Formats: sequence, structure tokens, C-alpha cells
Amino acid sequence: MHILVLNAGSSSLKYQLIDTGAHPEALLAKGGVERISDPAEAVAEVLQSIASLGPIQGVGHRVVHGGEGFRESVRIDAGVEAAIEACCALAPLHNPHNLSCYRAAHRLLPAVPHVAVFDTAFFHTLPPRAYLYGLPYELYEQHHIRRYGFHGTSHRYVSAKACEALRMDPAEARLITCHLGNGCSVAAIAGGQAIDISLGLTPLEGLLMGTRSGDVDPGVLFHLGRTLGMTLTELEEMLNRKSGLLGLSGRSNDMRDLCEAAAGGDARAGLAVEVFCYRVRKYIGAYWAALGGADAIVFTGGIGENRAEVRARIMDGLECLGGVETLVIPTNEELLIARDTARLIGRAGR
Amino acid sequence: MHILVLNAGSSSLKYQLIDTGAHPEALLAKGGVERISDPAEAVAEVLQSIASLGPIQGVGHRVVHGGEGFRESVRIDAGVEAAIEACCALAPLHNPHNLSCYRAAHRLLPAVPHVAVFDTAFFHTLPPRAYLYGLPYELYEQHHIRRYGFHGTSHRYVSAKACEALRMDPAEARLITCHLGNGCSVAAIAGGQAIDISLGLTPLEGLLMGTRSGDVDPGVLFHLGRTLGMTLTELEEMLNRKSGLLGLSGRSNDMRDLCEAAAGGDARAGLAVEVFCYRVRKYIGAYWAALGGADAIVFTGGIGENRAEVRARIMDGLECLGGVETLVIPTNEELLIARDTARLIGRAGR
Repeated sequence: MHILVLNAGSSSLKYQLIDTGAHPEALLAKGGVERISDPAEAVAEVLQSIASLGPIQGVGHRVVHGGEGFRESVRIDAGVEAAIEACCALAPLHNPHNLSCYRAAHRLLPAVPHVAVFDTAFFHTLPPRAYLYGLPYELYEQHHIRRYGFHGTSHRYVSAKACEALRMDPAEARLITCHLGNGCSVAAIAGGQAIDISLGLTPLEGLLMGTRSGDVDPGVLFHLGRTLGMTLTELEEMLNRKSGLLGLSGRSNDMRDLCEAAAGGDARAGLAVEVFCYRVRKYIGAYWAALGGADAIVFTGGIGENRAEVRARIMDGLECLGGVETLVIPTNEELLIARDTARLIGRAGR
Repeated sequence: MHILVLNAGSSSLKYQLIDTGAHPEALLAKGGVERISDPAEAVAEVLQSIASLGPIQGVGHRVVHGGEGFRESVRIDAGVEAAIEACCALAPLHNPHNLSCYRAAHRLLPAVPHVAVFDTAFFHTLPPRAYLYGLPYELYEQHHIRRYGFHGTSHRYVSAKACEALRMDPAEARLITCHLGNGCSVAAIAGGQAIDISLGLTPLEGLLMGTRSGDVDPGVLFHLGRTLGMTLTELEEMLNRKSGLLGLSGRSNDMRDLCEAAAGGDARAGLAVEVFCYRVRKYIGAYWAALGGADAIVFTGGIGENRAEVRARIMDGLECLGGVETLVIPTNEELLIARDTARLIGRAGR
């Protein structure tokens, strides 16, 4: 089955064409359109570039926020489309682009089934103690303010792969999965289900990221508002785009650059790397305690897969957790999106 | 030596009169003035109530924020007074009251030495990886935005006591100290020095507290600003005064009430207690990883000292950390303030 996987960002559209019927699945084509102005044009461009590879039997869309309603991947119909739109307020930087991309693709491929695969869905199993913030409960009840988590497709993929590598039944395995890329998150997984995740209502919480601050005393925002006169809008811009590795180093949001610069004697680059690693180490400890111990710590994502020195610095001192296995597993979110899409189409056809 | 210890809040003034020359030190009097309008009147009232107990040889003042400058307790002179005033921007809810109290006491007891004991001083040993936020570095350099930590006098006191109880040389001991009272914090201590603390630039970060939120995705604030039109001032009020145990339970900021209500079937009271305990457990795990293992976990503060069921729920599952000792040690910040005061006066006299 030829499945087109679409991942729409604010200014780019990435795609993969995957044959899910092959064993193992075959990647037929991949690519992207940068600096898009019109989603319809971008999708048309993608379809044109893969037109020679035969008909598409399904389209899988990455959708960032599925709110509390979407607990798994789903065929998109008018009701689902409306529900995704309702989640736009929770992810104003992401869902509108995912939705525009779906609408364009649906217009161009109206007879083909479309499936939404949510970044949040894997975390629907979080218990209230993990998803509730220490805020007035009404904010949760009336305005859905809670931890949702993101990178779910990646954590789901690598945790399943880790169980294969460990030859463990997923129902028995306790894992800490670290997705360290441009965005970064740590998840705690027990019995195949997520029990905690460092990303929150938004993709700003948790670890230090390329340009995002991660955890910060909320009192810092009030202090900056009072003393520097910064507005919520200015603070949001700063915490999302000028913080993290870039903000601390004053140099780059790219871990490769920073490791090189640090090796060359740039003290602030070294500091940014050190803060990054220390935060991951603390989250691993926190989730170790949340899980009551773990069978393995799994690294994935651009940094997690490729930067051995970063992994080593994160793990430095973690012998105190006992003889835990460390695995490096390349993530493949597109493959999981293609599989979910093929499975849901197959189910509907029966 | 008769030392008067003064702890001034926004509307109350608590005091203890301690004879530091007795073995062990003797508490001669303690009390407080509530709903004060004029600090000078409140201090005069305190002095009057202890007048019959003989002359005061020193006054120790609790000062919440000592910024980056104060790394230990200090005799107050005009320069110190100015420096404490300069820290008011960092702790606008606390330092102004501490300062007014000092000025009133100094006017009434001009010939007696006054000493400032800072809540932040114990944390001057934090390494940059622990005190830097993931924000533009200029905010640290130019505006002193960093983690300072609070409850330092309590963590210092109980960590020293824990080493006595464990018969360990403080230079060898690695401890995780949990101060769980109306405010709550966890500290990681190695070799007698703090290496991390859950409170931050302000006393809002970290654990769930009576009415304070503790950690929250900064993105939540931007979301509430955008969707509900809340201002920074409204958000600050909500996170400081309407959140935490009170906000989640909708019932009380008092752990005793909540444990009782939960036992009586109040689900939201139970939820608040569960979130509270889970967060402490995660911080213990995080600091276990930061320390590379610990010799003991120490509980103090009203909740930490008195609520065995809360301690048990926090520790539930932490067998995964290996055979760690758990200690309960009543804190005594006033005694440490009196000791520091007597020591500094003695030193000056030599």
C-alpha cells in the first residue's frame, strides 16, 4: 500500500512516500518544500514530484495537538476535522498548518482516505498526578489546561523498538526515552504506556532545547514584566525563539556547533552544553523515581542518535541508578504514521 | 549571650529570644505580633514583652534575599543595609519587610550589633549548570536572573543535624533535604555544600505548595494571556495565592485538612495530596541523579516532620534507589540565626 506521509510546519512541508506492503516497508521517496506561502501549491508540488511512482492509497498527516479527545490515530472526516480545528487554540503555532495541509491534500485527493496521527495521542495514558498542573482545578475542567506532551510518535516508535532489542515483552518493560533533537523531551513508559513526559500544555516545558527555554521559574516572567516592562507577547517570543542553547551560548542553536566551539575553548558554548546535559540527567532521575526503576534508557533524535559525547555527559554519574542499559535507536516517525494509516484504511475496508 | 531573632513577614513579626551561652542553647521567650501596621510599633511591642529578661546583646534578622553578593551571614552596617535594599527588586514581597524591621530595631537598639542571616546564602555554592536558566545569558549578566533558592537556613540546619545522626563527616555526606511546610523545597547537598535547590529566582518554582503552583509550563501563562486575556499581574496573583494544594483541592492549603478530607472520600483533596507527593518523589529522583546517589533523604518542616502518611507516599516506589536512609529532623532556623549572630558578634569583639 502506497502511503504518503505529510508533516506540515509553519513554513515547510516534509513528505515521505512509503510502501507499507513491502517487507520490510520501503521508502519510495522523500523530500520537502521550503518557504511555502500557499499550502495548496506546496501539496500540489509534492504530488507532482511523486506522480510517476503510482497511485497513492492513503495519506497520513502528522497533527501536533489532539487535545484530550484523540487517544489514537484516526481516519479524518468532517467531525474529526472540526475537532482538530478546536485544538488550534492549544497549539496555535502548529495545528493551523497541519489543518491547512490536510484541507489542501483532501481537495487534491478527495477519493483517498486521510488519517491523522497525533503527537499527543501516546500520552493519553498519563495519570492525573502527572498531567495536572498545580493551578486552580477549574482551569483544567473548563479550559483544558493540563500536560499533553508531544513527540508521542517518536517515543512510541523507539520504545517498541527498544523492547525488541531487549527481547522484552512491552507489558513488562519500564523505559526512559530521551528524544533529543531540535525539540527535546524525556518520557517515562511502563507496560507500553506513557506515564510522564517533560513537554507540557505547549512544547516549551522541560528540557533545554535549541531556542526554547524549557523549565523556568514562572516568577521569572513576573519579575521581567515588573522590572523590564516586558509583555507576555515579548516574553513568549523570547522563551520560544531566543532562549535554550542559542540564548545561553549566544552563538548557535545547533549542538554540533556548540560541541565544536566548546572543544575550541568557547566557555559559553561549553556552559550551554553542560546545562543541557545536566537537565536531561535530572529528568532521567525524576522518571527513574516515577517508574520505580527502569530497564533501559533510550536515546533518539538528532542529538540523541549522533552525539556520543553528549550521551556520555548525560550518563556521567548515573551509575548510581544501578546497571541500567543504554540504547541508541534512530527514530522514524514517518514510518509509524504510514503504518497507522495503512492499518486504519485496512480496518475500514474490512 | 542573649540574642533576639526577628523574622518579619508582610503582616506579622515573629521573634525568639535565645541564650546562646547556655549548653544547649536556651529558648528564653518566643512570640509574635500579628496584623502589624507599623514595624516600629511591632518591634517596640516585642522589646517591651521581653524587657524583664535582661539586656539583649545582639539581634539576628532573617533576610529573605541576599542576591549574589551575600554568601554568608553578616553584621549589618550602612553598606550592608544598602545592599539589602538593592535586593528588594528580587524579592519585592519579602525584603522590604525585613528591611523595615531592621531599621526599626536599629533605631530602638542602636548600640546593639545587628546581623543579617539570608535565606539564599546557603545556595551560593550552586554550580552554573544548576543556577542558570535556559534564557538569554544577558539576563543573567545584566539583570541577575538566576536560581537563588530559599529556605537555606533550614536546609543548612537539618543537613548538619543529619550528619550528626548518621555519624558522618559532612565533607563525605550526600544528602537530599526536603523542607515541606507552607513553602516547600528540596535541596541536594554534597560535602556540606548545596549543589541544587528547587526554589528559583523567586519562591514560586519547584514543588507544589500551600497556595503556590510550583513548576508550570511557561507556555501555560502565554496561553492564558491569549485565550482568557489574563495579565501578568493577574497570573502572578493566581500562581502565588490561588494555586498549589488550595487550587487543586478547591478546599484548603493545609495538608492536615486535605489528608483528613481525602480519608473521608473527597476525591479532589486526594488528588492534591497525590500531585504533591508525586512531585516531591520526582525531585528526589532528579537530585539523586544530580548527586550520583545519596546517603540519606531528610524530611523537615510542618508537613515533613508531622505527616507520616505523606512521607510514606513520597517514598513509595523509591526502593529503586537502593537502601537509602530516611530521616525526620525538626528544623530550627531561629537557633541557627542566633548562633550566626553570636558568632559574628564574638568575632568582631576579638
